[in-house]
Amino acid sequence: MKRKGILIVVSGFSGTGKGTLMKQLVQSYDNYALSVSMTTRSPRPGEEEGKEYFFVSREEFVSQIKNDGLIEYASYCEHYYGTPRKYVEAELEAGRDVILEIEIQGALKVREKYPTALLLFVMPPNAAELRKRLEKRGTESPDIIRMRLERALEEAKGIEKYDFIVINDKLEECVRNMHSLIQAAHETPERNEELIDNIRKELKNICV
Amino acid sequence: MKRKGILIVVSGFSGTGKGTLMKQLVQSYDNYALSVSMTTRSPRPGEEEGKEYFFVSREEFVSQIKNDGLIEYASYCEHYYGTPRKYVEAELEAGRDVILEIEIQGALKVREKYPTALLLFVMPPNAAELRKRLEKRGTESPDIIRMRLERALEEAKGIEKYDFIVINDKLEECVRNMHSLIQAAHETPERNEELIDNIRKELKNICV
Repeated sequence: MKRKGILIVVSGFSGTGKGTLMKQLVQSYDNYALSVSMTTRSPRPGEEEGKEYFFVSREEFVSQIKNDGLIEYASYCEHYYGTPRKYVEAELEAGRDVILEIEIQGALKVREKYPTALLLFVMPPNAAELRKRLEKRGTESPDIIRMRLERALEEAKGIEKYDFIVINDKLEECVRNMHSLIQAAHETPERNEELIDNIRKELKNICV
Repeated sequence: MKRKGILIVVSGFSGTGKGTLMKQLVQSYDNYALSVSMTTRSPRPGEEEGKEYFFVSREEFVSQIKNDGLIEYASYCEHYYGTPRKYVEAELEAGRDVILEIEIQGALKVREKYPTALLLFVMPPNAAELRKRLEKRGTESPDIIRMRLERALEEAKGIEKYDFIVINDKLEECVRNMHSLIQAAHETPERNEELIDNIRKELKNICV
């Protein structure tokens, strides 16, 4: 019996190192695929087509929406961002676990369409640590840091919607932990319908 | 923050080696406690008080029921069997994960009282393997084996009520797997209310 892939949605406060975590996870274990988003914004210096994003025109993006080519999409600062369906479904079908990074509204939309999607929420060990990390970046003004902390407070309201929380304290440990959580998710009854059906049929045949 | 223990209910077809699995789990890792049931039946040769069971009189058992001293109980072949509450709650409070082995009706009763209980269903890799294991025991007549298979078919109807299925193919691997599932269960939002509340409060304080 072929094991089908799980769609994994990663959310969490800005500054918790989601991106690094996900990259490290994909590098450390086989069987993961990172979903690449589509956007209408222009590439920034160093960004490559198909790596950070698929860069498309507004017309192309709207046509993708119309043709149900996106699992979810949202607009942010006058640009569209979305998750192309084709790549995700091909990878899931091939048995790979596909990872997306999106915020809570997108995460809940994904779960509506893919009821067996796994929702992970990445958190720092505590709020002081979050502020420290945001300040350490050194690239943002106190106003921006404050805005991000306020946003974190807002996002924290949705934590109960997630399947697991992932505390990002030490990177290596956190990546191992994340992998274990995903492995565990493969063992739920709703992700093993075929296996359960098979054993029921077999038992029926034996008992007849 | 002290991590609270999880109440773990293990069910599964007879002949899948639940008992061995649980014993091995408790031996292989710290932090587990095996719940010992109370029963009104007489000890069999070799059975020790407080090890296999707590052996009590019918009067004592009924008094336990009346005083809400049991998490769940059932009668089987004119004898009572139940799970003493005191031991379980003391162990959970001390941060240990407590394991019970009971069938589905009991498992669902436990979940009603302990909404964060973790329900594990142990299965053989397939039904043929289950029959083989039952036959291999060599202690049971074909009629009994047939009865157990029919019972398995009945129990299989409830698999979707469980949080995880545990395939018992190779013992060592299965014990490791079971441990991982339990570790994963510790990372759900509903089992980390205090941690989540704390970070929300901290964020609120920072943002004020």
